[in-house]
Amino acid sequence: MTETIGVGLVGSSFMGRAHSQAWRNAAAFFDLPARPVMAALAGRDPDRTAAAASSLGWASAETGWRRLLERDDVQIVDICTPGDSHAEIAVAALEAGKHVICEKPLATTVAEAEAMTAAAVKAAAAGVRSMVAFNYRRVPAVALARRFVEQGRLGRVRHVRAQYLQDWIVDPEFPLVWRLQKERAGSGSLGDIGAHIIDTAQFVLGEPLTGVSGLTETFVRERPLADSSAGLSAGSSSTVKGPVTVDDAALFLGRFAGGALGTFEATRFASGRKNAMRIEVNGSLGSLSFDFEAMNELWFHDHALPAGEAGFRRILVTEADHPYAGAWWPPGHGLGYEHAFTHEIRDFLVAVAEGADPAPSFADGLGVQRVLAAIEKSAADESRFTAVEET
Amino acid sequence: MTETIGVGLVGSSFMGRAHSQAWRNAAAFFDLPARPVMAALAGRDPDRTAAAASSLGWASAETGWRRLLERDDVQIVDICTPGDSHAEIAVAALEAGKHVICEKPLATTVAEAEAMTAAAVKAAAAGVRSMVAFNYRRVPAVALARRFVEQGRLGRVRHVRAQYLQDWIVDPEFPLVWRLQKERAGSGSLGDIGAHIIDTAQFVLGEPLTGVSGLTETFVRERPLADSSAGLSAGSSSTVKGPVTVDDAALFLGRFAGGALGTFEATRFASGRKNAMRIEVNGSLGSLSFDFEAMNELWFHDHALPAGEAGFRRILVTEADHPYAGAWWPPGHGLGYEHAFTHEIRDFLVAVAEGADPAPSFADGLGVQRVLAAIEKSAADESRFTAVEET
Amino acid sequence: MTETIGVGLVGSSFMGRAHSQAWRNAAAFFDLPARPVMAALAGRDPDRTAAAASSLGWASAETGWRRLLERDDVQIVDICTPGDSHAEIAVAALEAGKHVICEKPLATTVAEAEAMTAAAVKAAAAGVRSMVAFNYRRVPAVALARRFVEQGRLGRVRHVRAQYLQDWIVDPEFPLVWRLQKERAGSGSLGDIGAHIIDTAQFVLGEPLTGVSGLTETFVRERPLADSSAGLSAGSSSTVKGPVTVDDAALFLGRFAGGALGTFEATRFASGRKNAMRIEVNGSLGSLSFDFEAMNELWFHDHALPAGEAGFRRILVTEADHPYAGAWWPPGHGLGYEHAFTHEIRDFLVAVAEGADPAPSFADGLGVQRVLAAIEKSAADESRFTAVEET
Amino acid sequence: MTETIGVGLVGSSFMGRAHSQAWRNAAAFFDLPARPVMAALAGRDPDRTAAAASSLGWASAETGWRRLLERDDVQIVDICTPGDSHAEIAVAALEAGKHVICEKPLATTVAEAEAMTAAAVKAAAAGVRSMVAFNYRRVPAVALARRFVEQGRLGRVRHVRAQYLQDWIVDPEFPLVWRLQKERAGSGSLGDIGAHIIDTAQFVLGEPLTGVSGLTETFVRERPLADSSAGLSAGSSSTVKGPVTVDDAALFLGRFAGGALGTFEATRFASGRKNAMRIEVNGSLGSLSFDFEAMNELWFHDHALPAGEAGFRRILVTEADHPYAGAWWPPGHGLGYEHAFTHEIRDFLVAVAEGADPAPSFADGLGVQRVLAAIEKSAADESRFTAVEET
Repeated sequence: MTETIGVGLVGSSFMGRAHSQAWRNAAAFFDLPARPVMAALAGRDPDRTAAAASSLGWASAETGWRRLLERDDVQIVDICTPGDSHAEIAVAALEAGKHVICEKPLATTVAEAEAMTAAAVKAAAAGVRSMVAFNYRRVPAVALARRFVEQGRLGRVRHVRAQYLQDWIVDPEFPLVWRLQKERAGSGSLGDIGAHIIDTAQFVLGEPLTGVSGLTETFVRERPLADSSAGLSAGSSSTVKGPVTVDDAALFLGRFAGGALGTFEATRFASGRKNAMRIEVNGSLGSLSFDFEAMNELWFHDHALPAGEAGFRRILVTEADHPYAGAWWPPGHGLGYEHAFTHEIRDFLVAVAEGADPAPSFADGLGVQRVLAAIEKSAADESRFTAVEET
Repeated sequence: MTETIGVGLVGSSFMGRAHSQAWRNAAAFFDLPARPVMAALAGRDPDRTAAAASSLGWASAETGWRRLLERDDVQIVDICTPGDSHAEIAVAALEAGKHVICEKPLATTVAEAEAMTAAAVKAAAAGVRSMVAFNYRRVPAVALARRFVEQGRLGRVRHVRAQYLQDWIVDPEFPLVWRLQKERAGSGSLGDIGAHIIDTAQFVLGEPLTGVSGLTETFVRERPLADSSAGLSAGSSSTVKGPVTVDDAALFLGRFAGGALGTFEATRFASGRKNAMRIEVNGSLGSLSFDFEAMNELWFHDHALPAGEAGFRRILVTEADHPYAGAWWPPGHGLGYEHAFTHEIRDFLVAVAEGADPAPSFADGLGVQRVLAAIEKSAADESRFTAVEET
Repeated sequence: MTETIGVGLVGSSFMGRAHSQAWRNAAAFFDLPARPVMAALAGRDPDRTAAAASSLGWASAETGWRRLLERDDVQIVDICTPGDSHAEIAVAALEAGKHVICEKPLATTVAEAEAMTAAAVKAAAAGVRSMVAFNYRRVPAVALARRFVEQGRLGRVRHVRAQYLQDWIVDPEFPLVWRLQKERAGSGSLGDIGAHIIDTAQFVLGEPLTGVSGLTETFVRERPLADSSAGLSAGSSSTVKGPVTVDDAALFLGRFAGGALGTFEATRFASGRKNAMRIEVNGSLGSLSFDFEAMNELWFHDHALPAGEAGFRRILVTEADHPYAGAWWPPGHGLGYEHAFTHEIRDFLVAVAEGADPAPSFADGLGVQRVLAAIEKSAADESRFTAVEET
Repeated sequence: MTETIGVGLVGSSFMGRAHSQAWRNAAAFFDLPARPVMAALAGRDPDRTAAAASSLGWASAETGWRRLLERDDVQIVDICTPGDSHAEIAVAALEAGKHVICEKPLATTVAEAEAMTAAAVKAAAAGVRSMVAFNYRRVPAVALARRFVEQGRLGRVRHVRAQYLQDWIVDPEFPLVWRLQKERAGSGSLGDIGAHIIDTAQFVLGEPLTGVSGLTETFVRERPLADSSAGLSAGSSSTVKGPVTVDDAALFLGRFAGGALGTFEATRFASGRKNAMRIEVNGSLGSLSFDFEAMNELWFHDHALPAGEAGFRRILVTEADHPYAGAWWPPGHGLGYEHAFTHEIRDFLVAVAEGADPAPSFADGLGVQRVLAAIEKSAADESRFTAVEET
């Protein structure tokens, strides 16, 4: 591996740190078609960005993402900013001929996502690649779940039951961070974590949701104003309160193209559940169950076995022939949250090298956005069952 | 305990066996106000009923439930027949001055349930008691869950997530037993097992569902005709097929009176889940989680503890001060399915002796019926959110 | 089933209640060769025995176990007293031509157990049957574990890891009940609960322990004197203290006849473990794991499956073709502690009717006693590996 | 952080990769007193070492570990070779004034470990630091377990039950890799994985084992000869067989200085257990349970709570105030195997900067070696209880 490919990353918060970790380590575990060079980190604040670049392993720091587009040593732009800036950066980067990997949700509106998808299609024709970063697809257990479905081990799928449960805003005094403001975040639980279970369910089943019935709620309508930069953590908060303009929780029922039914729930009010991204799938020949809080385990019930010896089995997804797992450690030595990002980077680099379109594409991201829009529409219309616009 | 009270039971299938077990054993473990005397078992077939009476411990057998009403040594009538016969038997028994305990669902229609409730109210005025047998309320772990909520340990409840998952009709060749026929069963998963999670959720929260959005599905529309008496098991089946006229699965979202949101799912198509009657409740101060497949465990998260030492704890509900558990065995010696029925009988006998109205009442059963009706109405109207009629 | 067989039971404490429950219910769930008639309960205190007989369902009460031997309507004597009285009662009953079922441990010394075994062999020649009541063998999951081993599903067994963990005497103020006195109980954790894991391990493997290395300890050497009748519960206690003369915990390593190694631990000081009778078996083709605190589950790892889809699976032991389970409820409807006793009674009655020797025999009980003796000998001799005397 | 410190690492197999990952990432997550510079990787084969250096992020490659000692830009030597070379490298490095971090087990004999400890003590007097790399101490859940014990949350500890279960040599055709040869590995399961549970138990309790009774076994006495470099994986194997000269499994009982009893088991024959490094500790006030296969969970039973609400709780060890966890991701976002190494490097660098002796010291490593020696001695002497030599 003598070839290299230059990378510029925008954003150095939670996602920026996670992606940096992936760029820093991918080559040590995977045979990559080109070694990524961590050329530049871009941010708004020069000092903070320089410090972050230094600690995260980026060779240089840039103030403002546009500088990345001007650099010849940057072939890939990795977008790790909040959702409201995705469209502008991604479209500009693609037009500048940079391959783009963009955090989810793709955008905060369907219109933006459509524009991004159009730009991605146009860029692809010129050999420029793009991907939306639904990291959970690259958790080995989720990828294994997909493999089981693909191999027909579940038979005809009847049920999907997916939840993304967190509890970080149960306390009404938790401040009004940007993720609780519609203009910054687009939506609340729905777009932030609901988007993940929609993508995961559609990925594992290999088929889209065709219609949904939604219900959303904002339990705590006002919260103390927060330090503007605060992400998931509280930061300093004020005694002045402002309105929460996104949902605290979003529930929906859905139908998949193949006839399966789904129940979905995304909430930040499930006390004791920290990052419970869960999915269970029941089919005529078998079932699967996954909870990210035990991310190295996939539970599989093989309904083809005699009833007397069947049961959900705990597959520790650390075997050599499990997706991604073989690149790391011996069996039983689990992976952590950040590894999915490393896998994502690896797959993205391979697609770029092979001239293939990486998945999930911007079109896939748009598809998720349309499901989110249908849920919001249904929720605003007495939960009436609402068709998802086809992508 | 020198006083006795005579019992007559109608029906000797699954529920008849479970109730018989309860009558046979309650006095050996609980201090009862009156010792139940198992006077008579009533059934349609004389020989089968006589054999069942003998093996189940009933002193005599009667052909036809009406004979029980004529017997002076029967003060309690226990109704364990399919739902379509409940109204007629219960109303007649109450009018005959017999205390009535009736299996769930109370009836197959709201109208019947209303008539039964009216009869129960009238009877109560004359000191005649009635109860609908939602057995899961008397599982110690469920009763403990209720106690935690009642004590305020969960704070403000935000979420309920309830499922009743079975898999006994996944095979499309499983025959068309009475539970799959609308005229016998009223509804499918919805009324049979969905009723249980509705009652359990309302019981644990201590508040009713006020509105729902429903979705139902019949995955397998035709099945081989079955031996008419077959219950849960297959019996002999035919090559001739008939239509399945009930739902295979029912999903719904709901709102509780106190503002909590609920997701519910009842299905007989969840491969590998045998009798997973599950409920999780998330509140501002704590959370609870229960799965009947591990019926001696209640999981409790105390959100008031410091985050660094909090987590869902597995309470083995076998301690002396747990509901019902102290009457049985030492800690760690679990109970089984049938014990909830014994507890039910014990509570019913105590209420009768004290001249109190046992819970759940026929009015509670009617309340569940109205939720079921609202779900069906919503499901037939594009899942539109539908108010539950107040009881 | 028109034939009957008369039963007399000695002892009405914990075990007496559990056995009574079994006699009362066996005929309602199993096709028995003869219906057991609960003829008489024998005890030392006339009033207490009469009251117990009444609540537990015995037709009469006798003062002193010898009266049972004189009754023609008693064909079976069920011994539920503490271990120090087993030998005398059992030998006399066998000599009186009564079939005997005797609680474990068979005796408090090897010599007594030998005498009992000799009496049992002599009685068997005359068609009189005997059995020692190791109830855990009849837990469906344990019986299923045995079936898997018997079928060769585990291949060559390499490891057994068994524990019986309780915590009821962690508090040093818990009084000096009879189970903590050598002259009444024979030994402490070792004989009471250690005996269970020895029997269970030998039963599941189908082969005996041939040698052991033991270590025992009494953590709390003095305790308040207790009300003499107190069993597992505290009763009233005194400020005067007396010496604990049995072990609080017993640990041992062992070798099985077939070459497997075992680690064993029996303790009443495992805070938070209430009745954790656990066994794990690892073989060349598979592994099994069981914990009585989740008694309806058997975990099975099929090592013959490809590594990528293998894992411990949770078999809910409630299927129709599981041992004993089919007689009870539909799949997923679990059993409780007492059911194992019902199964024991059922198997004993079948053996008696068939003129076969029931298992476990008194000789099996003697075998366990010899393992206990070897452990004590080893513990007293610096844990030196000590051969178990062959039975 | 402008200061830097140069690192040279010996060995590029399993442990070399894990340590490299730690050196590469520590600065991105922790505030370090000095930034580690990955100066050189040393190995025997020039080409392989150069390739490994390149993919693992080392600036240069050296043939032979002695070259590291001559380099001025190397202040730390990290030893990741098999155990038989530890003594020579470590002593030489310490004498050359390099800080040393050395993989476990410290050595293959007590004599070597004593020599290393003497060298470490001498070096420490000159400000040169040393540490043995028992990585499991730095798993957040294990560090939290230690914190609970230290805070007195467990009260008086009575029981430790520790196992390290793997299954990678169950197949008798698995080849004779170096880990199965006494001259290379020192011992088998005992020294490789048994050493881990000894260190973990002594660390969590904060007290040493004072005596042991051991039992070891080699189930498969001959195996196909292997490619000499093969580590955990099979590599190419031969039809010629050679003798296995180490134990396949090691069991032992032990007593701790404070009076607690321990049962220990290390085996590579536990089918289905991949890397089950487990420890349970029972004390008078609480209990803890950990299994590395679910490494982000610590189970804690608080025995001070009322029995009615007590139970083992699953603490997801990902909270900000948990050991190490706050440096990584938000709650619920778990860590993987390699993170413990990053924590180890972080603690080592802090100790070096502060001029403090890092833990575990070479003396601690010697202590573990003496326990191993006592077990071997006991196993060779009929499992007789054997005192551990004091360190």
